[in-house]
Amino acid sequence: MSTTTPTSNSPALLDAERYHQIQQFYATQMQLLDDGAAAAWAGTFTEDGVFAQNVKPEPWRGRAQITERMTVGLARVAASGLVRRHWFGMLAARPDGPDLVRTRYYAVVYQTPWGGRAEVYLSTMCEDELVRTDEGWLVRYRMVAHDGVG
Amino acid sequence: MSTTTPTSNSPALLDAERYHQIQQFYATQMQLLDDGAAAAWAGTFTEDGVFAQNVKPEPWRGRAQITERMTVGLARVAASGLVRRHWFGMLAARPDGPDLVRTRYYAVVYQTPWGGRAEVYLSTMCEDELVRTDEGWLVRYRMVAHDGVG
Amino acid sequence: MSTTTPTSNSPALLDAERYHQIQQFYATQMQLLDDGAAAAWAGTFTEDGVFAQNVKPEPWRGRAQITERMTVGLARVAASGLVRRHWFGMLAARPDGPDLVRTRYYAVVYQTPWGGRAEVYLSTMCEDELVRTDEGWLVRYRMVAHDGVG
Repeated sequence: MSTTTPTSNSPALLDAERYHQIQQFYATQMQLLDDGAAAAWAGTFTEDGVFAQNVKPEPWRGRAQITERMTVGLARVAASGLVRRHWFGMLAARPDGPDLVRTRYYAVVYQTPWGGRAEVYLSTMCEDELVRTDEGWLVRYRMVAHDGVG
Repeated sequence: MSTTTPTSNSPALLDAERYHQIQQFYATQMQLLDDGAAAAWAGTFTEDGVFAQNVKPEPWRGRAQITERMTVGLARVAASGLVRRHWFGMLAARPDGPDLVRTRYYAVVYQTPWGGRAEVYLSTMCEDELVRTDEGWLVRYRMVAHDGVG
Repeated sequence: MSTTTPTSNSPALLDAERYHQIQQFYATQMQLLDDGAAAAWAGTFTEDGVFAQNVKPEPWRGRAQITERMTVGLARVAASGLVRRHWFGMLAARPDGPDLVRTRYYAVVYQTPWGGRAEVYLSTMCEDELVRTDEGWLVRYRMVAHDGVG
C-alpha cells in the first residue's frame, strides 16, 4: 500500500470549508453502508473508483464491482444478525489543488449482536483520494489497512 | 421511531459555521452528562424538549422530567463505580431554515470500572432536532436507538 | 489535576477556522505517535511543553524529555507486537485571546495484537493549552487523566 506519513505539524492544512464537507461526506457515506444500501454506497465512489483492503488479494474496481461485492458482504452481516457501525476519526487532510484532497484517517467498526453487547470488531488506518465532482465529493481511491495484518 | 435515511451524497450539507457549532455543542453537552451534572444537561434541551430511547416505553418530556430521570440514572452509575464517556461521531446534519438543524449520528459509550479496564458499553444511532435560541443551540427532540434492540 | 468543568452551553465557542485547525492538528499529532515517531511527536509540543498524566508521579517537561520517555514507551509497545491507535473526540474548545486555546476532550486508545482482535485499551479525559506559533499550533500543557484511576 502507499504510505504517506504526515510530516510534523504540516503547514498544508485543508481549509475549514472543505474539511467540514469531507466530515459530512464520510458520515453520510458510511451511514449508507451501515443501512445496507450497497448500490448507494458504491455511488459515493467515482464511476472508476477503487476500493482496496490489505485483507483482500485484489482491489475492487468500479461502481459495478463495488456494488456486487459489497452486496454479498452486507448480506452475510445481515444473516449473522449483527448491527455494524463504521466510525471514521483522526482525519488528516491535505489539498492537492481545489478539487482533489488526500486524507489519512482511522476507522473502527463496532458490532452489536441482536440482544447482545456491543464490541469493537476491528481497527484500521485508511487513505483516500477524494475528488470534487458535479455529484459532490467522491472517492477515487480508498486503501483500508486492517491493523495487525501483515 | 422516525427514520430519515440520508440519500446518497446529499447536496444539502450544513455550512461550516453551524457544523462546528454543533460539534462543540455536542462535546460540551455530553461532558456535562459524564461529569454528573443532570440539571445542566437537561438545560441543553428546550424547556419542552423530548428525550426518547428505543429501550424505554415512554420518552422523557421537558427539562423537569429529564432532570429527574437522569439524576436517578447518574446516581446508579456513580454507585456502580463506573466512569462513563459518551462519544458522538459520524455526524450528518441537514439545515431546515437558519435556526433548525436535523442531525443523524452515532453514539458509543465507554465505561471503565474503578481500577479496571475500559470497555465498550453500548452502540447507538441517534437523531436530533436542534434549534438555535437565545441560549445557543438546544435539543428539541432526541431519539436514541440502541443497536441490537428490537 | 486542574479541572475546568464547562458550564452549560458555553457562549464562548471557538470559531470554525481555529476549531478545524485543531482537529487537523490532533489528527496529525497522534498519527505521528502511532507511527512510532517519538521525536516528531515531541515536536508538536512547545520547546518547554509539559505532558502530564494521572498515572505518572511527575509530568514530562520539555521536548528532550518527552522524546526520551516516549521513545522508551513506543519501543515497549513495538516489542509487544501491538498496533495502537489514539483517537480524540468530543472536543470542547475555548479561546483565550487569538493565539491560545484551551481544550477539554476525550481520548480512547485501541490496540490490535498481531494476527488478533482489536480491543479498547483505555479511556481518558484530557485538557490542553494550545498556542499558535510560527510552527503552527503546539501543545504547551497537556493533562491526560486515565479513567478509573484515583
